[in-house]
Amino acid sequence: MHRYDLLVKGGLIVLPFHGEIRADLAVSGGRVAALASEIGTAEAAEVIDATGKIVLPGAVDAHFHIGIYRDMALDAFEETRSSLVGGATTVLSYFRTGQHYLDRTGPYKQIFPEVLEAVAGRCFTDYGFHLAPMTVEQIGEIPQLVEEHGITSYKYYMFYKGFDLAANSRDAQAFTMGDEYDLGHLFLIMEQLAAVQAARPDVRLSLSLHCEQSELMRVFIDRVRRSGAPQNLRAYSEARPPLTERVAIAEATTLAGHTGTNLNLLHLSSADALAAAATARDLHRHVDMRFETTLHHLCLDHDELDARGGLGGKVNPPIRTREHNEALWRGVRDGVVSWVASDHACCMEEHKGDLLWPARPGFGGTALLYPVLVSEGHLKRGIPLTRIAEIASANPAKAYNLWGRKGSLAVGFDADLTVVDPELTRTVTTDLLLSAQDHCPFEGAVVTGWPVATVVGGRVAYRDGEVVGSPGGAYLPRS
Amino acid sequence: MHRYDLLVKGGLIVLPFHGEIRADLAVSGGRVAALASEIGTAEAAEVIDATGKIVLPGAVDAHFHIGIYRDMALDAFEETRSSLVGGATTVLSYFRTGQHYLDRTGPYKQIFPEVLEAVAGRCFTDYGFHLAPMTVEQIGEIPQLVEEHGITSYKYYMFYKGFDLAANSRDAQAFTMGDEYDLGHLFLIMEQLAAVQAARPDVRLSLSLHCEQSELMRVFIDRVRRSGAPQNLRAYSEARPPLTERVAIAEATTLAGHTGTNLNLLHLSSADALAAAATARDLHRHVDMRFETTLHHLCLDHDELDARGGLGGKVNPPIRTREHNEALWRGVRDGVVSWVASDHACCMEEHKGDLLWPARPGFGGTALLYPVLVSEGHLKRGIPLTRIAEIASANPAKAYNLWGRKGSLAVGFDADLTVVDPELTRTVTTDLLLSAQDHCPFEGAVVTGWPVATVVGGRVAYRDGEVVGSPGGAYLPRS
Amino acid sequence: MHRYDLLVKGGLIVLPFHGEIRADLAVSGGRVAALASEIGTAEAAEVIDATGKIVLPGAVDAHFHIGIYRDMALDAFEETRSSLVGGATTVLSYFRTGQHYLDRTGPYKQIFPEVLEAVAGRCFTDYGFHLAPMTVEQIGEIPQLVEEHGITSYKYYMFYKGFDLAANSRDAQAFTMGDEYDLGHLFLIMEQLAAVQAARPDVRLSLSLHCEQSELMRVFIDRVRRSGAPQNLRAYSEARPPLTERVAIAEATTLAGHTGTNLNLLHLSSADALAAAATARDLHRHVDMRFETTLHHLCLDHDELDARGGLGGKVNPPIRTREHNEALWRGVRDGVVSWVASDHACCMEEHKGDLLWPARPGFGGTALLYPVLVSEGHLKRGIPLTRIAEIASANPAKAYNLWGRKGSLAVGFDADLTVVDPELTRTVTTDLLLSAQDHCPFEGAVVTGWPVATVVGGRVAYRDGEVVGSPGGAYLPRS
Amino acid sequence: MHRYDLLVKGGLIVLPFHGEIRADLAVSGGRVAALASEIGTAEAAEVIDATGKIVLPGAVDAHFHIGIYRDMALDAFEETRSSLVGGATTVLSYFRTGQHYLDRTGPYKQIFPEVLEAVAGRCFTDYGFHLAPMTVEQIGEIPQLVEEHGITSYKYYMFYKGFDLAANSRDAQAFTMGDEYDLGHLFLIMEQLAAVQAARPDVRLSLSLHCEQSELMRVFIDRVRRSGAPQNLRAYSEARPPLTERVAIAEATTLAGHTGTNLNLLHLSSADALAAAATARDLHRHVDMRFETTLHHLCLDHDELDARGGLGGKVNPPIRTREHNEALWRGVRDGVVSWVASDHACCMEEHKGDLLWPARPGFGGTALLYPVLVSEGHLKRGIPLTRIAEIASANPAKAYNLWGRKGSLAVGFDADLTVVDPELTRTVTTDLLLSAQDHCPFEGAVVTGWPVATVVGGRVAYRDGEVVGSPGGAYLPRS
Repeated sequence: MHRYDLLVKGGLIVLPFHGEIRADLAVSGGRVAALASEIGTAEAAEVIDATGKIVLPGAVDAHFHIGIYRDMALDAFEETRSSLVGGATTVLSYFRTGQHYLDRTGPYKQIFPEVLEAVAGRCFTDYGFHLAPMTVEQIGEIPQLVEEHGITSYKYYMFYKGFDLAANSRDAQAFTMGDEYDLGHLFLIMEQLAAVQAARPDVRLSLSLHCEQSELMRVFIDRVRRSGAPQNLRAYSEARPPLTERVAIAEATTLAGHTGTNLNLLHLSSADALAAAATARDLHRHVDMRFETTLHHLCLDHDELDARGGLGGKVNPPIRTREHNEALWRGVRDGVVSWVASDHACCMEEHKGDLLWPARPGFGGTALLYPVLVSEGHLKRGIPLTRIAEIASANPAKAYNLWGRKGSLAVGFDADLTVVDPELTRTVTTDLLLSAQDHCPFEGAVVTGWPVATVVGGRVAYRDGEVVGSPGGAYLPRS
Repeated sequence: MHRYDLLVKGGLIVLPFHGEIRADLAVSGGRVAALASEIGTAEAAEVIDATGKIVLPGAVDAHFHIGIYRDMALDAFEETRSSLVGGATTVLSYFRTGQHYLDRTGPYKQIFPEVLEAVAGRCFTDYGFHLAPMTVEQIGEIPQLVEEHGITSYKYYMFYKGFDLAANSRDAQAFTMGDEYDLGHLFLIMEQLAAVQAARPDVRLSLSLHCEQSELMRVFIDRVRRSGAPQNLRAYSEARPPLTERVAIAEATTLAGHTGTNLNLLHLSSADALAAAATARDLHRHVDMRFETTLHHLCLDHDELDARGGLGGKVNPPIRTREHNEALWRGVRDGVVSWVASDHACCMEEHKGDLLWPARPGFGGTALLYPVLVSEGHLKRGIPLTRIAEIASANPAKAYNLWGRKGSLAVGFDADLTVVDPELTRTVTTDLLLSAQDHCPFEGAVVTGWPVATVVGGRVAYRDGEVVGSPGGAYLPRS
Repeated sequence: MHRYDLLVKGGLIVLPFHGEIRADLAVSGGRVAALASEIGTAEAAEVIDATGKIVLPGAVDAHFHIGIYRDMALDAFEETRSSLVGGATTVLSYFRTGQHYLDRTGPYKQIFPEVLEAVAGRCFTDYGFHLAPMTVEQIGEIPQLVEEHGITSYKYYMFYKGFDLAANSRDAQAFTMGDEYDLGHLFLIMEQLAAVQAARPDVRLSLSLHCEQSELMRVFIDRVRRSGAPQNLRAYSEARPPLTERVAIAEATTLAGHTGTNLNLLHLSSADALAAAATARDLHRHVDMRFETTLHHLCLDHDELDARGGLGGKVNPPIRTREHNEALWRGVRDGVVSWVASDHACCMEEHKGDLLWPARPGFGGTALLYPVLVSEGHLKRGIPLTRIAEIASANPAKAYNLWGRKGSLAVGFDADLTVVDPELTRTVTTDLLLSAQDHCPFEGAVVTGWPVATVVGGRVAYRDGEVVGSPGGAYLPRS
Repeated sequence: MHRYDLLVKGGLIVLPFHGEIRADLAVSGGRVAALASEIGTAEAAEVIDATGKIVLPGAVDAHFHIGIYRDMALDAFEETRSSLVGGATTVLSYFRTGQHYLDRTGPYKQIFPEVLEAVAGRCFTDYGFHLAPMTVEQIGEIPQLVEEHGITSYKYYMFYKGFDLAANSRDAQAFTMGDEYDLGHLFLIMEQLAAVQAARPDVRLSLSLHCEQSELMRVFIDRVRRSGAPQNLRAYSEARPPLTERVAIAEATTLAGHTGTNLNLLHLSSADALAAAATARDLHRHVDMRFETTLHHLCLDHDELDARGGLGGKVNPPIRTREHNEALWRGVRDGVVSWVASDHACCMEEHKGDLLWPARPGFGGTALLYPVLVSEGHLKRGIPLTRIAEIASANPAKAYNLWGRKGSLAVGFDADLTVVDPELTRTVTTDLLLSAQDHCPFEGAVVTGWPVATVVGGRVAYRDGEVVGSPGGAYLPRS
C-alpha cells in the first residue's frame, strides 16, 4: 500500500501571499498531505512529473452561470468539464429565478433543492452557488439559506430595474418575474444581509453587484439604436458606457456605507469603473468591498472583435477597448482588483445570431482562466505567480468562505491543483476548451502557459488535454 | 433739487467679503451713488436714520415658488410683499410645467411668457425665474431660454421619478405631465447645459437639484405608512430619511463629474446631506458645486412641531432635528453652505389638513430671512455680519449672474438694501409676516434683529412694519 | 473751504475681495472719506484725474530691510522714496541685532528705540518693524515689544545656524552675535509667541521664517565651490538648492504644529518650496500659515542674469529658473501664495564685487511692486486686479494687523493709494526707481502699468516720476 | 539511517502571510525538508513533541548591539545565547566606529574584518551586521561593503549631531570620532545608497535611522536638568520628548523623498513618532519606508519603573507611558509597524549607577521577543499568530534580504524555529534570560507563552530552559 495517493513531483509550488517553493507535493485522502523537498515516487500510487512546471492551487472561478441558457444538468457537466482545462477546480455559480435558468419564480426553499438535484453528480469541479433575491419573499429566506444551504453570497443586478438581460426589452418585470426591483429592493437586501451578518460573525456574508445603471442605459441605448451606426459590439459598448457603471457604483456603495453590508463589485469592465470602485472604498473604509474583473474585460477589444465580425462577444457589461484592458491589468498588479473570474455562460452561436439587440449576452471562458493569467499577466506583464494565485484562487476563496480548504496548497488544504507548463503555447480554438459552446471570442489568441494536469480533491481529472474519469465534484456549503 | 434721492445715514454698512464700515450711503437713480463718512441730510430728498442700525445688501431669496398653489399674480403680489419684511429685495422663483402652478404642460416658449405676464407689475421685489425642463422638448428650448429670457438656471427634481409632490401618489407622470423623468432625463439636461455653457463662457449656467432618491423613499414610505406610528412630521422625516439625500447626491454629482455641469444642491436638510455634498465637491473638483440650505432646515425640529400639532411643517425634504440644525449652522459658519434661502411656497392651512399624506408640502419663510440669520446666526452663534451678507445676498447673486447689480452695496450696485435694528425683538406671528399664508411653522419664535426699512431700487418699499407704495419690482434677465 | 482735501476722479477703484468699481474717491483728514459715482472737482482742494487709470490700495511691502547695509536714516529716506515709485505706501522692515544694521547686539529695549529714532521723520511711507530675537534674552522681551511698541511679528533665519549672511563664513555666531541659534532656539521663540498669543487673542502674533537648511547648504556649497564650475548665480542656486528650503519648511512646520504658532514662510523661491509649504498647511490645519514670495523669485532666471554678467542678483534664497517662476505665478493665481513682497535691501555695486562668495546678498525692488504685478501678473497672465490688490496690499495688511487702516480703499481706511496707468510702458533703469542703489537686476525689463501718482495718508507723495514733498510717513504700532 | 535529522511533531505551524496549519515538520541538512500531516517519529533522528504547542519561524531580532559595552567575543557568546530563550535564531547587530564597541575609528575595510573575526564561532544564532558610516571615507566604502561583505543596511544616528550616547556630553565629535555629522552627512549617505541601489536592483539597500533631533534635545535637556525635579526615567523622557522624534522624522523623510533611499525608522517610541512616520509614508509614496518598534516601547512605562527605582531602564529613545504603549500596539495590529526588535544592548548595573546623565543607555531584551509578543500581543490583545510571525520574523527577513532562508517555515527555508508553549507562564527574572546582564527592566512581569525549544539551522540549540551544545551560528552576508 502506498503512503500517498498522488505525488506531484519536481514542480514549482506557488503559495499565495507567501512565495514559490521547489517542493514535491503529496496527496492523501483528497487533501494535501505533504510538501517536501524530496518524496520518493515509490511512496505514491500515482505520480505527476511536474519538473519544469508550475503547480498552482486550483482556480476558484468565482463567477459562473451553470444552466443559464441550457439544461442545467447538461450545462453542469459540459461546462465544469471546460473549467478543468483552465485549471479551475471550484466554480461558484450565480442562480436566480425569472427568465432563463429554470424560467420561473418562487421561493428558494422550493427551487434551490431542484437546482442542487439537477447538478448533483454532474460537475467535474467542486461547486457552490450565489443566489439573487428577486422578490421580497426571497429576501426573507436569507437566514435559512445561510443556515441550511451554506449560501453566504447573494446578488443584485442593477440594470434589471429597467431592462431584460439582452437589453432588448424594457419590460424588466416580465423578465425578473419579481417584485419592484430597484434601489429600494437593493436596500432591503443589504439591510437583511447586515442583520444576518451581525448574528454570524464567523462567516463573510456578502452581496455581489452587477453595476450598470439602467436609466442611463435607456438614454444611451436609444441614442445608439437611432444613430444609424452599425449595431455591433462597439455600438453595444456605447449603449452601456462606463458612466453607467460609475453611477451604479456610486449608488450601491452609498447604500452599503449606510448598512455596512460587505460588497463584491462584479466584472468591472472599464478604467472608470475601477477608479470609481477604488474611490468608493476610500470613502467607505468601514465597508468590506472587493472587486472582480474578468478575462474578457482584461483582454478583449470591441473593435478587434467587430473586425472579425459576429456578435459572439456580446456580454454585460460590454467589451471595451485596449486602454480599458490595460487599466484593469494595472489594477490586477497593484492589488486593487481582488480576483479575476470568467463569468462563464455557455451561449451557443444560434442564440447570438446576426442582430445585436436580440442576441443573448455572455459566453464561456473558464477554460482560459489560468492560461490567460499566466500568459498575459505573468509572462507578458511580469505579474508574480503568487499574485496570479491570489487573484485566481486565494482571494475568491477567502471572500466566499472557502479558505482553509480552497485557495492554497498548504498541508491540509483540499488537493485541488493544476500543473501548468509555462512553455506550452497554443492558439485558442473552440475545440481546445472542452466546452459545449460552439464559438469563442478568444479564438485565435496565442496563449503560453497551459495546464497539463488538473487535480480535483486529489483525483487527476484532466491530463494532457483530456478529461480523466467522471464528474466527482461536490457541493460546497459555505457556512 | 437734491443731489441724492435717498440717504441712509449713520449705519453700519456691511460689505460682503470685505467687512463692515461706518458710512453714510446715498442713492441716486436707483443705484448706490455714494458711500461716505459724512453726507449731509440736506443733500437727499429722503433720509433714513440708520444710527445704531445695520445696513445690509438686500437679500436675494434664491429659492422661491411664486404661484405654486395659488393664482400666480396674487401670489406674486402677496408673497413678494412678505419678502420685504425679511429684507429680501430679489426673489428667484422656481417654475415648472405639470400639476400645480399653471397645471398644464407645453413648450416654455408658450408658457413662460404667460408667467412673465402674470407677475408683471405685481412684485414688490425684483424677480427672476429658474425653469425645470420636464420634457425632452423643453430641454431643447434651453438655448433660446438663455438668449431670449436670460434664464441661466434650471432645475431637476430627483424624487419626481417615483412620486408626486406630496408623496401621496406614485403616478409621477400624471403629476409631471412630462417625459420619462429619471437619471436619463437628468443626464440629457446636464449634457445640454454643458454644451450651452461652452458657448456662453460669460455666464454661469447651472442646474439646481432637489436631492431625494425616490426608490429608497418607496421603501421607507411603505414602512412608515404600515408602521402604525403616528403619521406626523417625525413620520414624514423617517419616510424620507437623509439616506435618500445622500444617494441622490451621489447619483447627480457622479453625472455632473462626467458632463462638467455646474450644480446647485438645493435645501440640504441634514448633516448627512451636507457631508455627502462636501465629499462630492472634493471628489469632483472640476465641477462648480454650490450648496443651499433653508431657514427651516437650520431652525426647526420635527418633534417640537409635532408637540404643537398640525401638519403645517410638512415640506420636502422634511424637517429634521436639532442635531441636523446644528450641523447645518456649522456649514454656514465654515463656508460649506453657499447660501440660505426660504424655499417660500405659500400654502394655506386648508391644504395642509389633518392627514399627513395628502397634505401639501411647503410653506412661507421669506419674511424671516434676515431676521433669523441675524438672530440665530449672528447674535446667537457669532457668525460675522459679512458672512451673513454673503449667504443671504452676495453668494446667490454671484451664482445666478446678478453680481454687480445685486449682492452688495458698493457704489454702482442697485440700491437694494435693508436696515436692520439689531436690538429689535419680536415674537413671530402670522400677521407680522405680511404673507397671505394663514399659519407659520416658526410661530412663537422669539427673534431679535428685524428690518425696519427695506429699499428696492432706491425706493423705500417697507418701513416699520408697513409696506410703502406699490409693487415696483422688475424682471431680471440674467444673461 | 473745500469739503475734501483730495479727489481721485474717474478711476477704476479696486476693492480687494470684492471687485472693481467705477467711482470717484475723496479724501479728508488722511482717510478715505467718500466713494461716489460722481464727486465734483470743486469739492476738493486737489484733484487727481484718474480717468482711464486704476486706483489701487497702496501696497504694503511686507518684506523690507531699512538700513541693513547703510546708515539707517539715509536708507530710510532713499529707499522708502523708491517705494512710492512702486505704489507702496507702507513698508514693514526686518530688523535684527548682529552684523550689518547697527552691527552690535543687546536687548531690544535699548536698541529698538534707537532704530525708531534713526528713521523718525525720514520715511516717505508709513512703516513698521518685524524683529528677530537672536538671543534668549530677546525672546524674553517679546511681551514688552508687543505691548510697548506694537511689534506683532518676529523672525527666525534658519540658515544662520551654520552660515553668515553671504554664506562666506561658517562662523555664524560671530555673525549673529547671539546665543546658540538652532532649532532649539526656534522652538523657544515659537513657544513664547504661542504663550503671548493666548494672552492677546485680539491680534495675530506671528513668526516669519527664512527657510533654508544650513547643514544641507554646507554639503552643496562645498560641492559647488570645489566643482571648478563658474562661481556665478547658477552656482549660487545649486549651492542652496530647493531641497534646503523643503527640509527647513518640514522642520519649522513640524515645530509649529506642536506649539500652534502662526507662521509666515518668507520669500519661497521654488516650485518645491511652495509645494512643501502647501503640504505642510494641509498636514497642520490648525496652524495659521501664510506664504510669501518676491518679485525676483517670480520673474528672474539665473541663467539670464549670468548671461548679462555680474553678481547683482545674488540673494537668499537664490534666483532660480523660469520653471520655478511659473510655478510661483500659479501659486499667486490659485491663492496658495498669500502675498508678494520686494525683500528690498539696498546693496551697492561695490558690495557685490566680482567674487560670488564675499558678495553681499540682496537688492532693491520695492519700486517695481505694482508695476511688475500689473504687467506680469494682470496683463500678461490674466490675474484679476482684485487678486493683485490682495497679494500686494490686503493680505499682508491682514497678516500684520493693519487691516481697517491699510489694505483697501473702503470709506474709513487710510488714504494710501496709487493710481496706475495700465498703458504706460517703461523699460526699467536704475534711475527710474529713485533708489540709492546703483544697479538693478531687473534692468532692461519692459514693464507696462506704472503708478503715475502715489498718495500716502491723503498727501500726494509721488506724481509723474517725481517725489512730491518731504517724508511724511509714520510709525505703525500694530497691537 | 534516518530520513530526517529532526522532526517537530504535532504542532501548530505558523506560516506568515498565509495562516496556521496543523502539520509535522521535518528537517534535513539544516533546512525544512517537509511539512506533512503525518511524519512518523521513526523517520527522524531526533523528535520534538510539539503537541499543543505553536511552531514559529525563528525570530529575526533586527536590532541588536553585540559588543557595544563589553568584549565583543564574550558579548556575542552570552547575548546570542539569550536570544535562544526568546526564540530568536538570527540577530542583526548594529556596529559603528567611535566610542564604545572597539573605541576607535578607521576604514571599515580594516575594522570590519576584526569584528567578524571577534564573533566568529561565538554566536548561538546566525548573525549579520548593519554598519554606520561615521565619516565621509566610510560612506565611500559602501559599494565594497555591499559586494564583499553583503552589508545591505546602514545606519545614521540623528542625535549624534549634538550629543554623545548618554546625552551627558555635547562634544559629539569626540564621541563619534567622525566627520561633521549632521543632515549634510545624512544626505551624502542617502545619495550614495540610492546610487548603489540603482546598480543592484536585486537587493534592498536601506538606511536605518535613529530619529531624535539633537537641537531640540538641547533645549529640553537643559530645562529638565535645571528644573529641580528628580532626575529619573520620567525626566529622561521629558528631556527627549516625542517632538524630537517627529522633527527628526520630518527631516529624514524629506531627504529620502528627494534621494529615493529606502528607510527603516528604528525603535519608534511614541504615538507621535508612529503617526509622523505614517504621515511621511503617505507623503512620499515612492519611498520604501519600514517602521520598527521595540519590546520595551510596547510594554514599559517610566512611572512604573521609577516607582521601583533605578536607572536600568534608561534607553534611547526613552521609555514613555502606557498611552504610548497602546498606540504602538495598535500600529502592530494595523500593520503600520513593520517589525518589533529588542534593541538588545547588554549593559551592566555598574554602568547604570545612580546618576541619570552619566548612566549608559540600553539594556537587553532579546530573550523576551516571542514571549512578550505572544503574551501581550496574541493572548492579551488578540493579534493573530501569523501577524506575530510577520513582525518578529518574516518582515525583518524581507527588509534585510534574508527571505527565502529566514522568516518562514516553508520547505526549503532554514530550519530556524521555536516551539512555544502557549500555556507556560513565568515571571521574568534576570536568571531566566541567560544573558550576562545583571538586571532587567522587565523583571517581575508575568508572561505566558515561552519557547520550550529553539532550533537553529536544524540543530536544537535550546530546550526547556537550557542551552544545548555550542555556538553554531553563521555569518549572513546579504547580497
